[in-house]
Amino acid sequence: MNLSIIVILLGLSALAYGVFVSFSVLRSDTGNGDMQRIAAAIQEGAQAYLTRQYRAIALVGIVVATALLFFLGWISAIGFAVGAILSGTAGFIGMNISVRANVRTTAAACSGLQQGLTLAFRSGAVTGMLVAGLALLAIATIFLILTQGIGLAANSRIVVEALVALAFGASLISIFARLGGGIFTKAADVGADLVGKVEVGIPEDDPHNPAVIADNVGDNVGDCAGMAADLFETYVVTIGATMVLTALLLTGLGDGLYAMMTLPLLIGGACIITSIIGTFFVRLGSRESIMGAMYKGFLITALLSVPAIFIVMQLILGDMSATIGGTAHNLDKGATLSEEGLSTQVSGFTGWNLFFCTLTGLIITGLIIWITEYYTGTRYRPVRSIAKASETGHGTNVIQGLAVSLEATALPTLVIVGGIVISHQLAGLIGIAYAATAMLALAGMVVALDAYGPVTDNAGGIAEMAGLDETVRARTDALDAVGNTTKAVTKGYAISSAGLAALVLFAAYTTDLAEFFPGMDVDFSLENPYVVVGLLLGALLPYLFGAMGMTAVGRAAGNVVKDVRDQFAQNSGIMAGTSKPDYARTVDLVTKAAILEMVIPSLLPVLTPITVYFVITFIAGQHNGFAALGALLLGVILSGLFVALSMTSGGGAWDNAKKYIEDGHHGGKGSDAHKAAVTGDTVGDPYKDTAGPAVNPMIKITNIVALLLLSALAA
Amino acid sequence: MNLSIIVILLGLSALAYGVFVSFSVLRSDTGNGDMQRIAAAIQEGAQAYLTRQYRAIALVGIVVATALLFFLGWISAIGFAVGAILSGTAGFIGMNISVRANVRTTAAACSGLQQGLTLAFRSGAVTGMLVAGLALLAIATIFLILTQGIGLAANSRIVVEALVALAFGASLISIFARLGGGIFTKAADVGADLVGKVEVGIPEDDPHNPAVIADNVGDNVGDCAGMAADLFETYVVTIGATMVLTALLLTGLGDGLYAMMTLPLLIGGACIITSIIGTFFVRLGSRESIMGAMYKGFLITALLSVPAIFIVMQLILGDMSATIGGTAHNLDKGATLSEEGLSTQVSGFTGWNLFFCTLTGLIITGLIIWITEYYTGTRYRPVRSIAKASETGHGTNVIQGLAVSLEATALPTLVIVGGIVISHQLAGLIGIAYAATAMLALAGMVVALDAYGPVTDNAGGIAEMAGLDETVRARTDALDAVGNTTKAVTKGYAISSAGLAALVLFAAYTTDLAEFFPGMDVDFSLENPYVVVGLLLGALLPYLFGAMGMTAVGRAAGNVVKDVRDQFAQNSGIMAGTSKPDYARTVDLVTKAAILEMVIPSLLPVLTPITVYFVITFIAGQHNGFAALGALLLGVILSGLFVALSMTSGGGAWDNAKKYIEDGHHGGKGSDAHKAAVTGDTVGDPYKDTAGPAVNPMIKITNIVALLLLSALAA
Repeated sequence: MNLSIIVILLGLSALAYGVFVSFSVLRSDTGNGDMQRIAAAIQEGAQAYLTRQYRAIALVGIVVATALLFFLGWISAIGFAVGAILSGTAGFIGMNISVRANVRTTAAACSGLQQGLTLAFRSGAVTGMLVAGLALLAIATIFLILTQGIGLAANSRIVVEALVALAFGASLISIFARLGGGIFTKAADVGADLVGKVEVGIPEDDPHNPAVIADNVGDNVGDCAGMAADLFETYVVTIGATMVLTALLLTGLGDGLYAMMTLPLLIGGACIITSIIGTFFVRLGSRESIMGAMYKGFLITALLSVPAIFIVMQLILGDMSATIGGTAHNLDKGATLSEEGLSTQVSGFTGWNLFFCTLTGLIITGLIIWITEYYTGTRYRPVRSIAKASETGHGTNVIQGLAVSLEATALPTLVIVGGIVISHQLAGLIGIAYAATAMLALAGMVVALDAYGPVTDNAGGIAEMAGLDETVRARTDALDAVGNTTKAVTKGYAISSAGLAALVLFAAYTTDLAEFFPGMDVDFSLENPYVVVGLLLGALLPYLFGAMGMTAVGRAAGNVVKDVRDQFAQNSGIMAGTSKPDYARTVDLVTKAAILEMVIPSLLPVLTPITVYFVITFIAGQHNGFAALGALLLGVILSGLFVALSMTSGGGAWDNAKKYIEDGHHGGKGSDAHKAAVTGDTVGDPYKDTAGPAVNPMIKITNIVALLLLSALAA
Repeated sequence: MNLSIIVILLGLSALAYGVFVSFSVLRSDTGNGDMQRIAAAIQEGAQAYLTRQYRAIALVGIVVATALLFFLGWISAIGFAVGAILSGTAGFIGMNISVRANVRTTAAACSGLQQGLTLAFRSGAVTGMLVAGLALLAIATIFLILTQGIGLAANSRIVVEALVALAFGASLISIFARLGGGIFTKAADVGADLVGKVEVGIPEDDPHNPAVIADNVGDNVGDCAGMAADLFETYVVTIGATMVLTALLLTGLGDGLYAMMTLPLLIGGACIITSIIGTFFVRLGSRESIMGAMYKGFLITALLSVPAIFIVMQLILGDMSATIGGTAHNLDKGATLSEEGLSTQVSGFTGWNLFFCTLTGLIITGLIIWITEYYTGTRYRPVRSIAKASETGHGTNVIQGLAVSLEATALPTLVIVGGIVISHQLAGLIGIAYAATAMLALAGMVVALDAYGPVTDNAGGIAEMAGLDETVRARTDALDAVGNTTKAVTKGYAISSAGLAALVLFAAYTTDLAEFFPGMDVDFSLENPYVVVGLLLGALLPYLFGAMGMTAVGRAAGNVVKDVRDQFAQNSGIMAGTSKPDYARTVDLVTKAAILEMVIPSLLPVLTPITVYFVITFIAGQHNGFAALGALLLGVILSGLFVALSMTSGGGAWDNAKKYIEDGHHGGKGSDAHKAAVTGDTVGDPYKDTAGPAVNPMIKITNIVALLLLSALAA
């Protein structure tokens, strides 16, 4: 059977699992009338937002697709469209499951913790499998049609460009979804808290608050739909880049190239099966540890993936000890220079080398999860230090939170550096690409853990708004606390994989450059000032982007505050409980604000590479333009990695420091320490859910636009 | 006359100015008995701290000097000692003037605003001229002795190594002084505010607060002594690096090399004279604008520097249109490649080219000052947006402050990039070095503006503690508000010059490498994964360093809070006003804490380059060890620039947003907005005065340690 068809079947099995589990989720009890009405309002709001967001994105998408059609031809335009549509679809379906699972989780939590956990996690698993499955299907189908259908060579220019365009489509949607959703969710959250908790003194999720539905809508459109689009993009870019790099570097493989290019896809497919198996192990043990249940599922998946990847590799490579084609010089310039030290003298590499690279990727994933939990879990020093600092006030809470967020970048960076060194020693650049591929192969499971978060967050909100029993609320709270950590985990995972993928994308850039402009002597050395200029400008992007995201949330939240104040002033019945607030009005307002605010920052990574190339070319010649552009790509990951890691870990730590205090430490709810912790949580919100996570797609877009620019210049 | 002797005379004229003005400051009225007693307590505390700090640093210094003696010989060890001692001296004298000028400024402010301004600014000018003068003297004397005294060639290895060692001594003191002083000042400030303003409800600088003297001591040891050591270091490293680069690159000059190497020194000397002239123009105009008076002084200095630099250049170069020696290939690899675009086809450059590079440096300085004022001044959008966000609470204040701090990196980066491109187009790497030299040549004036800050801060404190009239306090407040901006300006200036200097230091590194290890093919290309590894590890340093600094302040401030609470509990007479708090006890406690906390973070940039080199060499061979080490140097500036700019600008903006509210906006003092603004100010404190500014010497140390490591490996 054709290898791509196997991949397609594996991808379809993910969809089948999704459909099957969806039905089981939808069949569950939806609770009482109150709960259903609240859930319907959230559903309606989320639906309305996503429709408008997609309409806005479609406008930008059509312009970009037209440009691609004009500069690069119809195959690239179609690739772009497929990537964009499927990325959107992953978000759309994920959000739709999420807004239906929330109320059912509340209802299930009435029966018990295990029931609530099962329902919430299953709905998360639907999103997870959809993301991985759709991504795999998209790449495999395009690859199959172009190579087997049209009969192009596996490493032909058109195939490479189609894969790049596919990734571009996915990334462009993803940055809009991450940023738009992120602004929506945090504007609503911060706005609701400011008036509700601070001014009026009502608890979170109090139905008297007109912004409360918007807050719950935000969880679904930001943390669920936005995240799904982001991970879809990360998957497509990483696996796609590995395939492209294989095509560009392993030129000596001849007929074996097609199989070698499907290997990353097969690894992805095999890990879909192990992820599906893993989901069945997410069950509470005797210690009732929710996080423990999650870890059990992840660990089973990771462990099963080891033999699964081995089997797939042997299927493709046959003899694992045989050297895989390509001359050493093609693989990696650096490797042939290794004359001293422990270098393994890679000149071509074996299947075993590649296999150990994937193991490295799996270990990186595990370590990143563990480190993120350390920095955001309530059981460890960082979160507790923030909680303790809250005793001396708002200021010290924020200082300690910022210190933790800066520190939280250290261990992940060391892990990434270790991963780069080990996988490069094993198999050069291709080795790094395989480590990244193995990381992403677990995406189904990781997304499942993450998508669980907004469902439980909503479930708690619905329990509160519907006035359910304290015991139910305690259960949904317990489920929700874990969600804070799993949400941080996915972001750390996505950005760390971007750290590896960036090297692969940069290699694709330089290889492309050598192919398109064979005579051009581009000096990528750090001694070239235009390389430093590119690095500086690249490093600036995440800062500017972060500033725009944070400002947007502040501005939109200010509008929410004004709207809520107006509603209270115009309708005194709201607080008296005699009439209902106009939830839809607030949702509508946040929707408009979020869509308006997401456009300019999202275009930043699209336009910057193009501008930098043309300006530097004008000043210092095309070879320096290319050098600066290449350096820009590394600069953006270099600073983006730190900005994103610090923001997402810091935000998670602040959030859980508040939860830790609410659990009765340092004075508990209502104490001065708690008030300080609420401030920290508010600060962390746009950090961890708006600016931080949107850095990942931003890095990818910058890289992909550069690749497309090369193609367009050469055309 | 020998050129170095001219430089030495110019340096001595700075010292003469300093002595002369010091006497005029010391002759002024010292106010009433209360004021004198308070000032004496501050003086005593500052003296005690600095003595202990220097004792601690001396221990580290002796170890380092011994290591240098062992690995590089006695000339390097002496160079190191001279740099260390003079850097310490600059800080020590500056602090001593500052603690005497504070009370005299208060007394002068009793007569009028102009009198207060004159006294505070003059004492700042003493520190400014001392920093520039001592730095110039140190370099010129060492250079004179080695070349004319011992008779070494100007570009001999020993001369280069002595200059590098001199810079190392200055930098090592500087990082300890910046960090130790920074921790002291902010621990005392934050601690005093937390108990005083928040818990007990007494105003800032209230004499009932046992931490109030420590707070005022902190201004002197951190903002004055620490800053002076820092700028001394920046001056020595930048001018020294330009000389070293001249020696390494302009090998074709022959006998002209000695003169060419003294040119940067002469530029520095000429600008000392223009700075001295500029100080006389700092006078209030009819609009009574203090900032305007400062600007007048700076502008006169900058404008006079243009002809001064021109005269000096013509003196050395004779014909400004003649090409200056060295083959194009030596000057800059990139430049010979320029076949397209606007490139000026530099192959050798003229005096005019160099002159325009210095103009570029002056313009960069002006732009950085202007941008910093925009981001930290109360008249512009950023500070006002933070003030406005304070209306909705602590959280939104901090969010907006963080957004501003992220955004504040953008314009300076563009200015630096523009400066690199223009000066490189004009004269290659040497051009960049001259732009940096011109920036630093204005250091006397810039430090004067900065050192003015702690004096006025103290003057306000003394007025408050001595219970002086409201009108006096209003005057010292007005003087102090400007200090916030000038303090931010110097930090932005120092770090921006570091951005240019880093390129020069990196060039010194690669040139050294080529000289010491002629056969080694080191691949600095971004395609080499070990370059990326080095960049990542370098980029991590400022984050880790920042985290340590912030945590240290939090921890030390916590101790202050405990001590103050204890004093209140043990002695009820303090608040009743019947007995005095034990100020010295708090000063002593902060002293111990600051010295303890400064050691480990300060060693981070010393040990990291060495560790990275050996680990990567072990894994991937020496050529990759060198590549990773080189990349580390650029990585640390790449992320350090952004971390430092965002922290110093953001912190200044938070501080002035509070001041803006205190001026009666958004509800004024005591309003909820004001409380939120105090939180922001507290957060900004360790940002702008501890972690942020210490990044500058950290970058330099990393670079210099790498240069010394090369020498040691080659020896």
